[in-house]
Amino acid sequence: MDVGFLGLGRMGRAMAANLVKAGHTVRVWNRSPEAARGIDGATPVATPAEAFRGDAAITMLADDAALRSVIVAGGLLDAPERPAVHVSMSTIAVALAQELAPIHARAGVAYVAAPVFGRPDAAANAALNIVAAGDDAAIATVQPLLDAMGTKTWCFGPEPYRANAVKLAGNFMLISAIEAMGEASAFAEGHGVPAASLLDLLTNTLFASPVYKGYGALIAERRYEPPGFSMRLGAKDIRLVLAAAETAGVPMPFAGILRDNFIDAISHGDGDKDFAALATVAARRSGQL
Amino acid sequence: MDVGFLGLGRMGRAMAANLVKAGHTVRVWNRSPEAARGIDGATPVATPAEAFRGDAAITMLADDAALRSVIVAGGLLDAPERPAVHVSMSTIAVALAQELAPIHARAGVAYVAAPVFGRPDAAANAALNIVAAGDDAAIATVQPLLDAMGTKTWCFGPEPYRANAVKLAGNFMLISAIEAMGEASAFAEGHGVPAASLLDLLTNTLFASPVYKGYGALIAERRYEPPGFSMRLGAKDIRLVLAAAETAGVPMPFAGILRDNFIDAISHGDGDKDFAALATVAARRSGQL
Amino acid sequence: MDVGFLGLGRMGRAMAANLVKAGHTVRVWNRSPEAARGIDGATPVATPAEAFRGDAAITMLADDAALRSVIVAGGLLDAPERPAVHVSMSTIAVALAQELAPIHARAGVAYVAAPVFGRPDAAANAALNIVAAGDDAAIATVQPLLDAMGTKTWCFGPEPYRANAVKLAGNFMLISAIEAMGEASAFAEGHGVPAASLLDLLTNTLFASPVYKGYGALIAERRYEPPGFSMRLGAKDIRLVLAAAETAGVPMPFAGILRDNFIDAISHGDGDKDFAALATVAARRSGQL
Amino acid sequence: MDVGFLGLGRMGRAMAANLVKAGHTVRVWNRSPEAARGIDGATPVATPAEAFRGDAAITMLADDAALRSVIVAGGLLDAPERPAVHVSMSTIAVALAQELAPIHARAGVAYVAAPVFGRPDAAANAALNIVAAGDDAAIATVQPLLDAMGTKTWCFGPEPYRANAVKLAGNFMLISAIEAMGEASAFAEGHGVPAASLLDLLTNTLFASPVYKGYGALIAERRYEPPGFSMRLGAKDIRLVLAAAETAGVPMPFAGILRDNFIDAISHGDGDKDFAALATVAARRSGQL
Repeated sequence: MDVGFLGLGRMGRAMAANLVKAGHTVRVWNRSPEAARGIDGATPVATPAEAFRGDAAITMLADDAALRSVIVAGGLLDAPERPAVHVSMSTIAVALAQELAPIHARAGVAYVAAPVFGRPDAAANAALNIVAAGDDAAIATVQPLLDAMGTKTWCFGPEPYRANAVKLAGNFMLISAIEAMGEASAFAEGHGVPAASLLDLLTNTLFASPVYKGYGALIAERRYEPPGFSMRLGAKDIRLVLAAAETAGVPMPFAGILRDNFIDAISHGDGDKDFAALATVAARRSGQL
Repeated sequence: MDVGFLGLGRMGRAMAANLVKAGHTVRVWNRSPEAARGIDGATPVATPAEAFRGDAAITMLADDAALRSVIVAGGLLDAPERPAVHVSMSTIAVALAQELAPIHARAGVAYVAAPVFGRPDAAANAALNIVAAGDDAAIATVQPLLDAMGTKTWCFGPEPYRANAVKLAGNFMLISAIEAMGEASAFAEGHGVPAASLLDLLTNTLFASPVYKGYGALIAERRYEPPGFSMRLGAKDIRLVLAAAETAGVPMPFAGILRDNFIDAISHGDGDKDFAALATVAARRSGQL
Repeated sequence: MDVGFLGLGRMGRAMAANLVKAGHTVRVWNRSPEAARGIDGATPVATPAEAFRGDAAITMLADDAALRSVIVAGGLLDAPERPAVHVSMSTIAVALAQELAPIHARAGVAYVAAPVFGRPDAAANAALNIVAAGDDAAIATVQPLLDAMGTKTWCFGPEPYRANAVKLAGNFMLISAIEAMGEASAFAEGHGVPAASLLDLLTNTLFASPVYKGYGALIAERRYEPPGFSMRLGAKDIRLVLAAAETAGVPMPFAGILRDNFIDAISHGDGDKDFAALATVAARRSGQL
Repeated sequence: MDVGFLGLGRMGRAMAANLVKAGHTVRVWNRSPEAARGIDGATPVATPAEAFRGDAAITMLADDAALRSVIVAGGLLDAPERPAVHVSMSTIAVALAQELAPIHARAGVAYVAAPVFGRPDAAANAALNIVAAGDDAAIATVQPLLDAMGTKTWCFGPEPYRANAVKLAGNFMLISAIEAMGEASAFAEGHGVPAASLLDLLTNTLFASPVYKGYGALIAERRYEPPGFSMRLGAKDIRLVLAAAETAGVPMPFAGILRDNFIDAISHGDGDKDFAALATVAARRSGQL
């Protein structure tokens, strides 16, 4: 297929490279052009419009503001050439997805939301879990692309924003797991039990899952730099969760705690560390640090 | 070995039966004597003192009050015959363990704390994870008994109360996982995504662990009766967590939320349901029920 | 003085009327023009631009969106006639105030933030407490206007946004007081003590202040309709508090609780009631309603 | 009247002195006997039994443990001489009051709960607000004593424990006010507004009540030593609130926050400061300290 890829951060570069490997023709664009170079077999283009056309255009832009700026303010939906399908893969606000769907419809571009679970190594290994929602036919069209980037595509019906809601729900659960490990670790340490011993037991038994094993190891070793996913990005995700929850009428007390603890961590200088450092807040509040 | 077993609830009966199967001589006692009958090969005894003797005595009594009443108030540590080792396997307060250790020492009875992770089916299958702390030699002595009941024994050093702290930390993480799934489910439903679909995705990927799969299924199916572990017992465990955390100087905001939500659930008539019904609190507060 | 007044809700109408009474020349504008009629002695004008000129223009518009739409999107700062001072009196986001200050400066219009404490009856009685910040000379210029509307002006220095921060801090404390009365009332009722008896004692002794007496009476009598200030507006204020707190790096756990409880109340159909109905959330969660 | 007074801390001494001034015959007892000396006109006695007799005995003992130890474990209700009325004035658990009422009834001693609002200076000035519950006739009997110690007696019916619930509800509201001021102050400071300026405005307008003025001044001046009422005692009161709330089925999210913040403060070395120092937790978490 003929594909454009916009947004070449660590995730995007790996995903675009996998599309090339799968035999697709890939035009790549990034705001800072250096990132667009060096993806073997992909063609760097100079403007978003040159990427946003063809059989499908995939966006993996940093955040709501970037997506809005490039697609909406950039006028791409009014450009003479437009893609058949826009696959929006970054983590964005539910409200933004709800706003983008109808303006794509008016522009005759199918809009598929397809955010992903997985860190950069999973992206590199084409092992992402992809959460897709949108028109069935459009998803079917881009399925070969999704297959080139992920292990499995999980479909959530025709309303694109639902995929974004699912992605945010998953991130909320993931960050809650980090906080729970953080509080449990401070509790254990407060009783003379090393956090590493506690987490070794729990992440190899009841909680033997990728999230707990991965973040449990970071917490046990206090290995928060370099960040795989930064504290500020984690805080942003919880902000998106809280905003969507309020609109949907859902109190989320755990999310409220996470919000405060992200602020606490950032106010103590940890904004650029891995968001697993959220686990240090309980220790600091206990006077253990 | 010659073993006494006190406390024959669903967990205790299964554990005692496994001791018999492993070839040990087992005297069993329970407050209501019916429960002591029908464990093939075990010998029911009429008084706690007849069970609390021999190579080891294991207690799996309901709660702090039961343990205190039988062992301390019942004067078993002053009885003429006493066991070499007392293995205290129920979930009790850290403070009670701290109180019991020295009075056992004075009585010349080795005190091993060995609470377990696992529901009754794991107890039946001798698949418990056992968290042990206490004198090394005493643990070594009772290791054959622990091996007969569990898959693995995780050791946490010579201070018995540390095993209790670890057990409470694990239960806290487990209940936090239920709450996180509850909030995430209400969030998903508020966006038109069935909780079952969300949990199917997450518990088969990022959260593919026994706790999430098991409780995720209960939540997805809203199957809260009959209870595997009741709401009131869950509330009690969080009470024990909060008490120990306060003594150890550890703020635990997630535990505070769990406490309030247990109260909310019990005040809405769910006290005798499975504690996974904690997940319904977020839905009710969202006006979804 | 020659004054324009934009935004004639219940508060604005009363404030504009007091300016007329104090002898000022007042042009009044409102989006729905009916509200601009019937303020004796004031001159209704048809467009915002006709109001936004003269010695001073006062805005008491509903919210951030209204202010932004009228002043910024409406191009009033580029209009040929502009006021010497713009007194922004509604409760708006700190971030909006920070955004408005420099664009006023570029337009040569002094920008004074002067949000108020007081419900409509206080506005009618010229008994508002006015929280002002901005250029000293500009505040001095409009002081006669502020004196016509309020009992006292409290000044917070040259940075306008600080007045907005103070206003939000006050609203946060006020809503926290409602929540505290709500929880205490549910606690009392749960012990057989009528909430009205509890609040009678406390609001006549330790808490004998306007906020506690006023809202305590509403809570004691469960008198939430008609709303003096609606639940949805209260929720909006807490949203503004949380947003500003995050930017300023301040965890505010009470505000997080208030947020969830506003959502709970709104999801149970109380969005149009007085925000004192926040006090019912604790009672409902306790199964008392 | 012939009165015994047990418990001569700062509050108790002042209260006993006022009984003497009002012309009553007062026997005084304290665990450490020095405190019983030097109350002009009162008669120190050597044992609790010598104080616990006469027309009325008043207890103002430190906490649940002290009251239980002196009255119950001390066997005073089985002593040959017993008072006609026992007025229990310290802040104790609701559950303890519920336990004490029937055992007093069996001993033929009327049991009146009469905890007080007011700090030591109010006690010295006979300006306490007294919250009384118990048998009408018994309260009428001791009314002259209550009048000698307080400004007003607020009655809450025949069940003594209700007075204790009201006292705890009041303390909860008071501590919530401190926390709200603390969070608001950190919010203000985070926006460049001195906490003292914010509190000056609010405690002289909307919140012009004794609690806000008194604690607001301590917070504004960061004057936390010497303590009027210590952090540890505040933490104890919230523990009593949470325990009673759980029994009564009332979720109290604000109380959960207060609990964590007390722990945070104590873990940072502030356990012996005035409990108004709770307000520093928000500042510390914001990185302002």
